Amino acid sequence: MNLKARYIDMESAEYTCVLHDNDAIELGVREQDRIRIKHERNSIVALLQTTDTVVNQGEVGILGRAYGVLGPERDEIVDVVPTSKPESVKYIKKKMRGEELTTEEIRTIINDIVQHNLSNIELTAYVVALEINGMNIRETADLTMAMVETGDTITFDRGPIFDFHSVGGCPGNKITLIVVPIVAAAGLIIPKTSSRAISSAAGTADIIEVFADVNMDAHKLRTVAEKVGGTLAWGGSMSLSPADDTIIKVEYPLGIDPHAQLLASVMSKKKAAGANCLVIDIPTGAGTKVPTIEEAQAFARDFMDLGEKLGIEVRCAITYGEQPVGRAIGPALEAKEAITILEGSKHPSSVYEKSIGMAAMVLEMGGIKNGEAKAKEILESGQALTKFREIVAAQGGNPNISSSDITVGMYKHDIISAMSGYVNSIKNKQLVQIARAAGSPKDKGAGVVLNKKRGNRVLEGETLYTIYADHEAKLEQAIELARKLDPMVVENMIISKLPNSSKYTVIEETSSNVRSERN
Amino acid sequence: MNLKARYIDMESAEYTCVLHDNDAIELGVREQDRIRIKHERNSIVALLQTTDTVVNQGEVGILGRAYGVLGPERDEIVDVVPTSKPESVKYIKKKMRGEELTTEEIRTIINDIVQHNLSNIELTAYVVALEINGMNIRETADLTMAMVETGDTITFDRGPIFDFHSVGGCPGNKITLIVVPIVAAAGLIIPKTSSRAISSAAGTADIIEVFADVNMDAHKLRTVAEKVGGTLAWGGSMSLSPADDTIIKVEYPLGIDPHAQLLASVMSKKKAAGANCLVIDIPTGAGTKVPTIEEAQAFARDFMDLGEKLGIEVRCAITYGEQPVGRAIGPALEAKEAITILEGSKHPSSVYEKSIGMAAMVLEMGGIKNGEAKAKEILESGQALTKFREIVAAQGGNPNISSSDITVGMYKHDIISAMSGYVNSIKNKQLVQIARAAGSPKDKGAGVVLNKKRGNRVLEGETLYTIYADHEAKLEQAIELARKLDPMVVENMIISKLPNSSKYTVIEETSSNVRSERN
Repeated sequence: MNLKARYIDMESAEYTCVLHDNDAIELGVREQDRIRIKHERNSIVALLQTTDTVVNQGEVGILGRAYGVLGPERDEIVDVVPTSKPESVKYIKKKMRGEELTTEEIRTIINDIVQHNLSNIELTAYVVALEINGMNIRETADLTMAMVETGDTITFDRGPIFDFHSVGGCPGNKITLIVVPIVAAAGLIIPKTSSRAISSAAGTADIIEVFADVNMDAHKLRTVAEKVGGTLAWGGSMSLSPADDTIIKVEYPLGIDPHAQLLASVMSKKKAAGANCLVIDIPTGAGTKVPTIEEAQAFARDFMDLGEKLGIEVRCAITYGEQPVGRAIGPALEAKEAITILEGSKHPSSVYEKSIGMAAMVLEMGGIKNGEAKAKEILESGQALTKFREIVAAQGGNPNISSSDITVGMYKHDIISAMSGYVNSIKNKQLVQIARAAGSPKDKGAGVVLNKKRGNRVLEGETLYTIYADHEAKLEQAIELARKLDPMVVENMIISKLPNSSKYTVIEETSSNVRSERN
Repeated sequence: MNLKARYIDMESAEYTCVLHDNDAIELGVREQDRIRIKHERNSIVALLQTTDTVVNQGEVGILGRAYGVLGPERDEIVDVVPTSKPESVKYIKKKMRGEELTTEEIRTIINDIVQHNLSNIELTAYVVALEINGMNIRETADLTMAMVETGDTITFDRGPIFDFHSVGGCPGNKITLIVVPIVAAAGLIIPKTSSRAISSAAGTADIIEVFADVNMDAHKLRTVAEKVGGTLAWGGSMSLSPADDTIIKVEYPLGIDPHAQLLASVMSKKKAAGANCLVIDIPTGAGTKVPTIEEAQAFARDFMDLGEKLGIEVRCAITYGEQPVGRAIGPALEAKEAITILEGSKHPSSVYEKSIGMAAMVLEMGGIKNGEAKAKEILESGQALTKFREIVAAQGGNPNISSSDITVGMYKHDIISAMSGYVNSIKNKQLVQIARAAGSPKDKGAGVVLNKKRGNRVLEGETLYTIYADHEAKLEQAIELARKLDPMVVENMIISKLPNSSKYTVIEETSSNVRSERN
């Protein structure tokens, strides 16, 4: 059908065109059908919307960038023909039936995703089918390789290449800033890429950005890593495993992350970045992504099996995640806390200990004996700080950076305990909400600093935590939310008495030993 | 956040708004998050798109009808706040985990669907979860009732109310035009609603529209049915079970129709239209929706169980669907063929026999003994034709309508057999594609008429079928497609010889008896 092209100044996730209802009927097509539009030698495939107002009969509206790709003049005639669904829809339906997909079928799906051939409806069907029916390790390995092959890959002149990854879910986990310099200072090469926050208060890339440039392409990642031994880069600034960026657009609104897709997402980025040896941190416990030790063990097993298929040696650490790592949450606050550790502080002890422990695992994979002692030596001798400054300098930051250079939010407010008792629990998700209300991660100075952690004795009137913000209005919003969410539960030894008579009392027998947890 | 309202002249399935990237980050929201926009006393919830070109920082773009619902002036300030996902997303995820949903949870999902609270991504997750994990009969009954309760319902002054439904999948199935008049002429009341074609060549509503008005609201449906005993209406013109219209928008592009949703879709429309007694036609066999007798039996059992829960007596007919019913495919061609039967023709015999058989089942549900004899008597005495004309007149058509009044496509082309032999198979789906290429269902005169059916002897040079079109160009397209698809397979008794030596010959022993099938 020959129609006049009309530009529609509106962007959408999918290439989209608009036909008048009558033309759609004439062409025998419906909303969400695929239309091929031809203009001279160019041709695009777009998803159909129908209308009786936005375009007239005889016209085809083409949205946003798709119009530029096709390139007609205003009112120029283009040829519009119905076209069929991409082949991968067949394989998505096969997975919906619970069947195993072949290597080639998985590759076709990922190709179609990367080339934006799938509509959101089709992409959602893929993600939901994967969430429900899963993939075995062979399929997951094929999925990982398909994601690698459709993006950039990095090859290093020397090796082996080391990497470190946390599956996330525990706020305040700024240890990458300490692990990478320790590993690089020991002479191993660790081209680390990190992500930004999606629903957390601060991704590692958000934290690093406080003091260095995290944007680099694959070439620069290689150059910096080969020069100074390590990087602190934003993974999103290079095109490693680009399928992931598209898939997450439908995972996020549903709040799901299918197991196979999560495994492939992590491992494809590591494989594409050339990793040979990988340590994975799996924060575990209530309020994290992995609630139980059993789940964490199964998760670790899958990572290791998958690593074997991909030629990456994987070791996993199941770590304590029921409260934040350290005390600071938010980009600048976390940066400051991490640099303090690099400068020699052993507090907060949870940051110090976790960093040493994770770095030690990497060092031992690199053939260094007594990894923990070596990691401590590198950190305490100042070699890690020196290496950190080299990396920061290579990424355009201050070569003499110190923790005192980091500016935190100028507006702050202490949240006070209304009673004396013990901190019985700290709710990760609620703390994250408060930090985000205060402006984190966009406002670099915003966040939360805990004054008390689980098991600590608290007196009435003492500060539980402090909220920081760059803008006064956001501080107010965060305070209001903090009052509503009450993320830190303080209780007496006698939690409650039931029924309201003196006859029955329920006493939680908790020794102060148990109460004194990781800080 | 206070932003200037800007109208965006573009319609989308979901209420949609557009924020500049920076404002979205400031607000802590991402694409596909939900935003509440407030203007004076109005407020809408819209899905977010982000942009760095379509709107400027400080503006919120609001698409199409959502702008009108909110009602701000150009550049008027509106308040924009993030809002949470609808509750039903939780229940959709529960179904993704394979759990049974409660009555209240199902009702919440359907309410959110009808109120357009779900995005396409969420709606797709619902449909895919249902396709994979299914629903038991209790859930399906709850789903059906939720779909009934969210739409219009019709209550008749007298009863019982009879209804008839075909699950479709077999082209040429115009029998509703004959069954309804027979049933109504017998004194039973049958307020029949039908659908238009989605992917078929002609829905029953498309056929009726050739000679009568199919649009009526629920009130008129009742009035006409109570006056003349039956209707031949388009279900889409009234708001019975409106959830269905939204759900089909994601089912169609995936080419799926989850079993529980299909059952609920059919039964909710019947329940809403007040049916007490229902006969269901299940066309079965290769090239239909229900390939095997076993599947058809299970399907029938589910319809009957569901009917019991809904207070509808259901009887099912498993019918032969491996080739078209009758010879005509396409709105006017099918209308003409059906009226010919009403006028006394017994050919095509498949139309005559199926109509009598289905009508007889309805009559017997109505307590009329020897239903088949009674149906034949009504048809052959001309009472059915009289009743048909009454219904047509009540729906604004010609009260003296006859088959000769129906105009078919003025362009036609015979497809000739290149060899002598037998028609071994007729491919339903390919015939439908050819009819659609010829212009069906939009061009009322377009379609296909079969000259030969399965098992018929064909001589070289004889016509296999004729393509009709209202437009010459479409006839050409259909002819081209017919050559490519070859929907009617003519073979000799000796189909092939393997290997190509005289030693082995494979002979298909087919008696002419078997070859002479339903015509």
